[in-house]
Parts: sequence; structure tokens; C-alpha cells
Amino acid sequence: MASTDIATRELQNPVDVAEYLFRRLYEVGIRAIHGVPGDYNLSALDYLPKCGLDWVGNCNELNAGYAADGYARVKGISALITTFGVGELSAVNAIAGAYSEFVPIIHIVGQPTTKSQKDGMLLHHTLGNGDFNVFNKMNAAISCYVARLNDPHDAAALIDSAIRECWIRSRPVYVTLPTDMIYAKVNGDRLKTPIDLSLPENDPEKEDYVVDVVLKYLRAAKNPIILVDACAIRHRVLDEVHDLVEASGLPTFVTPMGKGAVNETHKNFGGVYAGNGSNAGVSEVVESSDLILSIGAIKSDFNTTGFTYRIGQLNTIDFHSNFVRVRYSEYPDINMKGVLRKVIQQMGKLSAAPVPPINNALPQSEQSSTSQTITHAWLWPTIGQWLKENDVVLTETGTANFGIWETRFPPNVTAISQVLWGSIGYALGSCQGAALAAKELHNRRTILFIGDGSFQLTVQEISTMLRNKLNPIIFVICNDGYTIERYIHGWDAKYNDIQPWDFVNIPKVFGAKDGYKGYRIKTRDELHNLFADQSFRDSDSLRLIELYMPRDDAPAALKLTAEAAAERNK
Amino acid sequence: MASTDIATRELQNPVDVAEYLFRRLYEVGIRAIHGVPGDYNLSALDYLPKCGLDWVGNCNELNAGYAADGYARVKGISALITTFGVGELSAVNAIAGAYSEFVPIIHIVGQPTTKSQKDGMLLHHTLGNGDFNVFNKMNAAISCYVARLNDPHDAAALIDSAIRECWIRSRPVYVTLPTDMIYAKVNGDRLKTPIDLSLPENDPEKEDYVVDVVLKYLRAAKNPIILVDACAIRHRVLDEVHDLVEASGLPTFVTPMGKGAVNETHKNFGGVYAGNGSNAGVSEVVESSDLILSIGAIKSDFNTTGFTYRIGQLNTIDFHSNFVRVRYSEYPDINMKGVLRKVIQQMGKLSAAPVPPINNALPQSEQSSTSQTITHAWLWPTIGQWLKENDVVLTETGTANFGIWETRFPPNVTAISQVLWGSIGYALGSCQGAALAAKELHNRRTILFIGDGSFQLTVQEISTMLRNKLNPIIFVICNDGYTIERYIHGWDAKYNDIQPWDFVNIPKVFGAKDGYKGYRIKTRDELHNLFADQSFRDSDSLRLIELYMPRDDAPAALKLTAEAAAERNK
Repeated sequence: MASTDIATRELQNPVDVAEYLFRRLYEVGIRAIHGVPGDYNLSALDYLPKCGLDWVGNCNELNAGYAADGYARVKGISALITTFGVGELSAVNAIAGAYSEFVPIIHIVGQPTTKSQKDGMLLHHTLGNGDFNVFNKMNAAISCYVARLNDPHDAAALIDSAIRECWIRSRPVYVTLPTDMIYAKVNGDRLKTPIDLSLPENDPEKEDYVVDVVLKYLRAAKNPIILVDACAIRHRVLDEVHDLVEASGLPTFVTPMGKGAVNETHKNFGGVYAGNGSNAGVSEVVESSDLILSIGAIKSDFNTTGFTYRIGQLNTIDFHSNFVRVRYSEYPDINMKGVLRKVIQQMGKLSAAPVPPINNALPQSEQSSTSQTITHAWLWPTIGQWLKENDVVLTETGTANFGIWETRFPPNVTAISQVLWGSIGYALGSCQGAALAAKELHNRRTILFIGDGSFQLTVQEISTMLRNKLNPIIFVICNDGYTIERYIHGWDAKYNDIQPWDFVNIPKVFGAKDGYKGYRIKTRDELHNLFADQSFRDSDSLRLIELYMPRDDAPAALKLTAEAAAERNK
Repeated sequence: MASTDIATRELQNPVDVAEYLFRRLYEVGIRAIHGVPGDYNLSALDYLPKCGLDWVGNCNELNAGYAADGYARVKGISALITTFGVGELSAVNAIAGAYSEFVPIIHIVGQPTTKSQKDGMLLHHTLGNGDFNVFNKMNAAISCYVARLNDPHDAAALIDSAIRECWIRSRPVYVTLPTDMIYAKVNGDRLKTPIDLSLPENDPEKEDYVVDVVLKYLRAAKNPIILVDACAIRHRVLDEVHDLVEASGLPTFVTPMGKGAVNETHKNFGGVYAGNGSNAGVSEVVESSDLILSIGAIKSDFNTTGFTYRIGQLNTIDFHSNFVRVRYSEYPDINMKGVLRKVIQQMGKLSAAPVPPINNALPQSEQSSTSQTITHAWLWPTIGQWLKENDVVLTETGTANFGIWETRFPPNVTAISQVLWGSIGYALGSCQGAALAAKELHNRRTILFIGDGSFQLTVQEISTMLRNKLNPIIFVICNDGYTIERYIHGWDAKYNDIQPWDFVNIPKVFGAKDGYKGYRIKTRDELHNLFADQSFRDSDSLRLIELYMPRDDAPAALKLTAEAAAERNK
């Protein structure tokens, strides 16, 4: 009876599984799908246009995964479609990175029919051993939820759960779509009720208890500060952070992975804290504080300049998506969001020390310099003077994602880098997705800084940007190879060299139209002139700039971090 | 006492683990290592020069994995070095392909120190959860052996076992090398004894029994034939196949994955058998045979034109690396090599029917044509007229690896394609490794045929070819996108289109020197003239040819296979 009931109900408003899935993606804000076509996903792609979704059509799946990551970091969530075996495995590194850094990507994999799988057929894109579960298991290790759509009766529910888990836990989910399931019918009436994306409520008694403990220490503190890290962004408590900063008046700092989380022009903002690699004067303030409200911390090696924090746990309250820790007291299974909201409401007036203003002034050593050499010490504050409100700024693992610590952002900048996972090549793929998302959101500018070594891994995504008429500004830092690696090991080693490329002409061979213009910048004056150049500023085409910097120069924070890494590798 | 003994013995001739490993790689014939540098493998790379090994320095890890696959298919075995997490995961698709298609690659992964792993440190390139075993487990599913070098006491033995398993089972192995283990000392005296790469002997009584059964059916057969498939190549029984063909005089055919296994100019050679996609006249001969000696078969969809074999098991003897099957009688745990050798010695004179000669004559339909359009029906026999002895010929998944069925090779051609795994983009990466291996072996020519869609996935490996001064001849089939996919689904769909590229100028932006020349070929006469052009023929630089073909043309075998795939996807 039960199964007949379901069948009858479904018949009232039957919808194909692929359509159901794609309408749900539209509902949560996705407007473009990244991926590469493959014979097990082609029929599904036919459903995209009528569901209001664009197909990006990346050059390969790893790049598509990176792009989906970038899109999600700007728009909140994204989707990626690959094909069984070959396609999904090419994307594994990108998905693992999203898992590591809490980026919600719905990864949909087109599979052979359920019958072919059951029969263990010797199909292309298999290991030839009849086992259709190998890739599924690999992906399960880097996904927070797996939905295998093998049966019309639970397909819609699994889709809804996958999207909800992806959003709530802010991590990739894995959805398999066998070709025969594309056309299977599910109950379309479910679409009338949006997926519930709200956070589960904390236990109120427990939440109040934690709030009281937090308030007790906060009120007793003499010079408390706020330190905002990656998970404040990824677990969506930036409204709470903003209100806390405003209401408390406390000095506020960000970690490298927290860049962009708060308004860096706010009077409370004191700069980047990262142990030994902190902005000038910051570590003294943070480390002498008697209470650090640490929000969403990821204390990884590269986020802490090689584990050089000098903050005692006795002076720390850690807020996380699934627990709060006050000094050494742990409160598991509680989300920081509700706690922060109540703390803000109840804390009353606090004594707040003023913070030294942070700006994009050049460091002392550069102020009187007459050198025309573009050094990192000069570049990053200068970039800060040029950036605009609402920019999306990507920095590749290497000199750029350390250099950006010295750039004070205008308000509402979205900063994208992969400080924890650190896969080189990521930022160029991510830039494609971020630029597309930025275009969907009021045409924000997208600006990428990437090294000449990293650029080589994912170069073909320039083509995807051109194909999708995106107009990011891409700075290729030309310094003859893998500089971050030279600082770790092999200063003059051949393996840290790269093949020299003619970067500015690459968009041309990938089909750039006449509007495209490339630039070669070798002096400080040339960069200033470029920023003042109206044709550069107002162009609606992609711009690529070769930025020549000395081979042996690097941001100070990178040098410290690399030294620590080299020491630990021994 | 035991551990002291080991320590004492090791002290007599201590060798660093990295040096031990690399000397073993040299010993089995490897001269160049593919991969990408990363901070967990840099120190290991320092050991390469003194062990006689070159570092290739690929642009990314997937391409490096493909290249290692190509190198192994020409030289017998290869090695790949990546870094923990980000690097190894990017290569997963390439390793899975090598597992699927029986290609021996030693994958060495540089890891954080054993202590960092034990302490579960929050390092870059991790998932941030302290679990250092996730990637290891993923790789174990696509490797035939895992050697985790965590302890100097068993490191040398594990290395030897890994190399032996890789060779014997002809599949990838996974070797982890934490940075502290690079310098750990092992017993260098082990290097005086080469690794035993010989196959385990079959049980002699069992082997004789199987030989008798085979001979009984072989002698009773009226019109037996030989059908040679992929595993004859991959499990190294080509000498036995050659002797069997010579001694028996039997008509001999190859499957698509068996291309290159036998001398196609031999009088016994009858062409390609692949069910409905067979060379003209072949299926009639094969399917009317009363005994098929099937050697190393992989009866996958793309190798059989969509499962269209019409061969009864009652008429088949299957020879494999780990079993033999005579009609329905199975003989597990026996290697075909010893069985074939004895069959050849004992079979005596057989009655062999003559086979129609196979050559590169154009099909009837093209012989009187005055068209200048380069069609598949015209192209592949024409290519066969141009190829030379000892060429290495790569064909990408798509029109090329079906078209090549219609090319009769000169002697000693190595044919490379990925018919089972079928990852697009593979052949360009593989071409880099194959060209390097071909250069090591008496400067054989390397020739690649790849579609304009597939080329986009791995384009940057052109740069690696230039950097390593390789001179392959690369034909890019320009037919406006993913033609194989159009035949399966979405004939005019946008998702099967690609961004148009200026292919001939791509090597220039990747640093090609003046010697480089690109060609655009749009007519049959132009291709004939190119083949006659001395500057093209004698160039020692990379050559890239845009070969324009109609968007809607495909080899007949591809059309049949795609129809079958589309039908099965419903």
C-alpha cells in the first residue's frame, strides 16, 4: 500500500529527477553550473536552460572544481557536474580543498544506468573490475554527505538533504545521477516548499549557560580583543561579528584566513594577527590582551606564520560552528551564532582600548626609496590604495597570499585564497567562478594575483573566462618560478625553475577578441600609470598584467613561514 | 638482539632511503621522473642527479601522471613524484587510468614528517582534521601495492616489494616518503642484488595439464585463429605471441586495445576484430572460426564496438596473466606465459587458412573521389601509408582512437590509447612521456592525433615538451568540439561546443624557439604535400598541425559504438 500511495501522489505532479535537482539548485541561489560534459551526464545537461541555469563549460574538471569553489565563496553555494570515473576523479583535489576550507559545493556525478552498475558491466570509465563503488568511496572521504540517486522513491528527499547538509555544514556533498534516473519521476509538489536551510537551534538552557560564562569573563577582562578567522566567514556569522564589533567597540583583528571578514576601514580594526608575521604593532596588542574572543579559528601552520601564536588558552574564548570553548571548558554541540547574538544583546558597555589606525601607507623603508623595483614591501600597500569597495580579490598560494596581509581592504571586499589546503593553480580556476559570481552580483570587480609558476597549472581557464565574457584583472607575478618553494628548499634548484611563457599573449591564442589588452609592468611608475590609465580602468574585457618582481624577493611573512616549514620537514 | 644486528649490518654500507629508492628506479630502466615539485618532496628531488635520473618538471600533476603512463607504455615502467594531498589527489585520475589499463607506475608521494603525522598537526595540504590517512586510503583503491616508508628497518624491503609488484602485476603502486625518511639510513648492500622481476613459475603439473587441454582443442580445430588483445602487451607475452603466430601460421587478428601487439605487415595478419566495427571482412573470418585463441582480452564496450562480439565461449580459449579458460573450464592461478611457451613447443603442424592481405588502400568509396575534404574514411589509411617502422603513435579518446582501427601499422609501432579508461586529455600528457621515452630509445618518432576538445584539458604539457626539447608531431583534429559526445547525445547542444583556439600559435606562447613551425591543413593535397615536405620530415623540433575535418564526420566504428552507448544510457 505504501508504495502505491507514493506512486499515486507522485502522479499528481510528476517531475523528472534532473529537473527537480536543478530547480532546487536555482532555489538556493545558483545560476550557473560548472563542469565538463561527459557521456554519462549529457542528457542531464539538457535540463539546465529550462531551470534557469547556465552551463559554464570548463576546460577540465579540476579547474571546474576550483571555479565552483570560487563561485561558492562569492555567492554562498555552487554546483559542479562531472562524469563517472574520469571526470569526478580529476576534480578530487578541488573537492578536498573545499572540504578542508569549508566551501559548499554540490558535486553531481553522471553515472552509468543503475542496471549497468548492478550487472557489473565492463564499461569505459571503469576500473574494468565490475566495481562501481570505488569512486563513490573516495568521494565520501571528502564530502559531508553522499546522496546516491538510485531509486525514484527517495531521490527527491535525498536531493533536499544533500543541499541542506551542504549549506549547513558548509562543505561539499556528493550526488550520483545514473543516466536512467535523469528521467525518473518524483513528486513535483515538494518544490512548493523551499528546503529548510536554517541552522538547528541550540538547546536554549545550554546556550544561556554558555552565554553567562562568556559574559562573566568578558565583563571581568581589562583589555579584551576580537580575533576573526576563516570559519566566521564560512559558517556565516559575519552579521554577528559586525554587530559585536560595533556594540563592543573592542579592538578587532583578523587572521590571514579571516581577511575580508570585517570592515578594515572601521575605527576598531587593528590589522592582521598571525604570530610573528602579524602587521606591524599588532602582535604586541593581541598577545598582551587578557581576553581574546576568537571567532572561527583555524590555527594552521600557514595561518599562524608557522605556529608562532603566543596566546594562552587561559586568555581565550573560542567560538565555533559546533562548539564553544571558554579557557579550558568545552561546550560541544552548540553553534556560535546563537551564543554571539545573545552576548551582543546582554554584554552592556565594555571598556575598550583604542587601536592604532591601520592604513595603506608604505613602510618606513620604502617611503624615501627612489627605487623603481617592484618589491613586495612596496606592492601590497600600493595595491591597497588602488582597490575599491566591493572588489573580489584572489591571491594564489605563494608570495601573493602572504603579501595580501599587508593590504588594508576597502569595505566589503571578498578575499579568496587557500591558506590551509594550499593547492597551487587553485586561484586561477577559482577566479573564473568568482568573476562569474561577481558579475551576477552587481558587476563587482574581480582581481587575481598569481605567480608565474602557479599560473601554469590551470592556464586554460583563461579560455573559459573569455568564453563566458568575464573581465577579471589578472596580475601574473613574474619572478622566475616557484619562489615559495625556493624559500623552503632548493634556492637555485632546477626543479624550482619553470619554462618561460609569453603570458600577455596567452589570452590571444585562447580566442580573446580585440578588446583584450595585455600589459608588461616592470617599474613602480609604470604600475602607477596603469592604475591611472582610463582605458585600463574602464575596460569591460579581461586584462592580464605581467608584473615583474625580483626572483629573490618575498613578503616577510612568507619568509618566516617557509623557514618554519623547512625546519619542521627535517 | 635482532634490531642491533640490523643496525650493525646497515652501518657497513649505509645509504639514504631516497638514494636507495632512486637507484632501484634506475636499475629497472627508468631514466626520467615525472612530477611537480612541492614542499614535502623538494629534499628528495636533490638526490635525482647523482642517481642518474632526470627531472621532467611537468606543469601539473594530472598531466604528469598521464606522462608517466605514456613513458611506461614505451619503456616498460615509470615513476611519478607528487606532494602530499594537493599533488597526489590531482594525479588520481591518471593513476586510476593506469590501474584500469595495466600500466606500471611507481607513484612516490612526499609527506610531512612521521612525527607531524603522529601528532596530527594542523598543516597545510591537510583536511584540517588531523587525519593523515585519507589520501593513502584513496590511493590504495587504485594501486596494486602500498609501501608506507615510516621506518628505516623495513623501508628498503618495502621499496623492493613495491617495484616488484608494480612490474609483475603491471599496475600502479603507491609509495609514501615522509620528509624525515628521505635521509634515514638503510642497508646499501641490498643494492648489489637486483630486484627479482621474474614471474612466479606456474605449478608444473598444473601447467602441463592446461597445455594438454589447450592442445587437444587446438589440434581438433578446423580453422583456428589468434586474437590478440591489450593484456598480451601489458603482461609482456609479445615474444610468445610472435612465436605462436610464426610457428602456427594461423590467421591473426588484434582488438583495438591490441593494436601494435603484432607485426601488421606479417602475412598471417588479418586486421582488427571488434564485432560490428571490425575491419572489412574480418568479422566473417573471426566469427566463423571454430577455435579462437584469445590472448589477454579486455572485452569492454569501446573495445568491442558496444559488446557486438559474436564469438561463442564454446569456441574460445582465453589466456590471461592469472588464469586460463578453455571453453567453460577455468584454470585459475596460472600465467599464460608458461602455457603459451609450451603450446608453441608442442603443438606441431597445424592447418592454417590463408588470410586476405590487409593494407592501407583507401576504401572503395574514396578511391574515385575527387573531394579535397579530409574525411575519416580517407585519413586513416592515408596515415598508414605515411607511418614508419618504430613509430610511437598516440590516439586520443574520440574520433582518433576509433579511426586508428583503419590504419595498418608498419612493424614495431607502439600504439598508445586509453580505450577502456577513456579520459579525455590523456593522450597529450601521455605524448610528453612517450616522446621522452622514445628519445631515450634510439630517437623513435612520436606522433599524436588528438581532437580540439580533448587538447584543451591538458594543453600546458606542450610547454613541458618544449622545456625537455622533445619533438613529437601533433595533429589537432579541428572539428569544432566534442564529436564523440555529439554522436552519443546533444548533436547541436552548446555543451558540446568549445572555445575556438589558435592552436598553431600555442607553442609560441609556451616558449617555443625559432625552430618551431605550425601548419594548417585543410585539404587532402595539403596533407600529401606536408608529408612530402623535407623541412617537416627532418625537423628536430616539435611540430603542430591543425587538421581541419568536418564537424559531423566520424569513423564508422565510433558511430556504431556511440549508438550503442546512447542506447544503454536510456
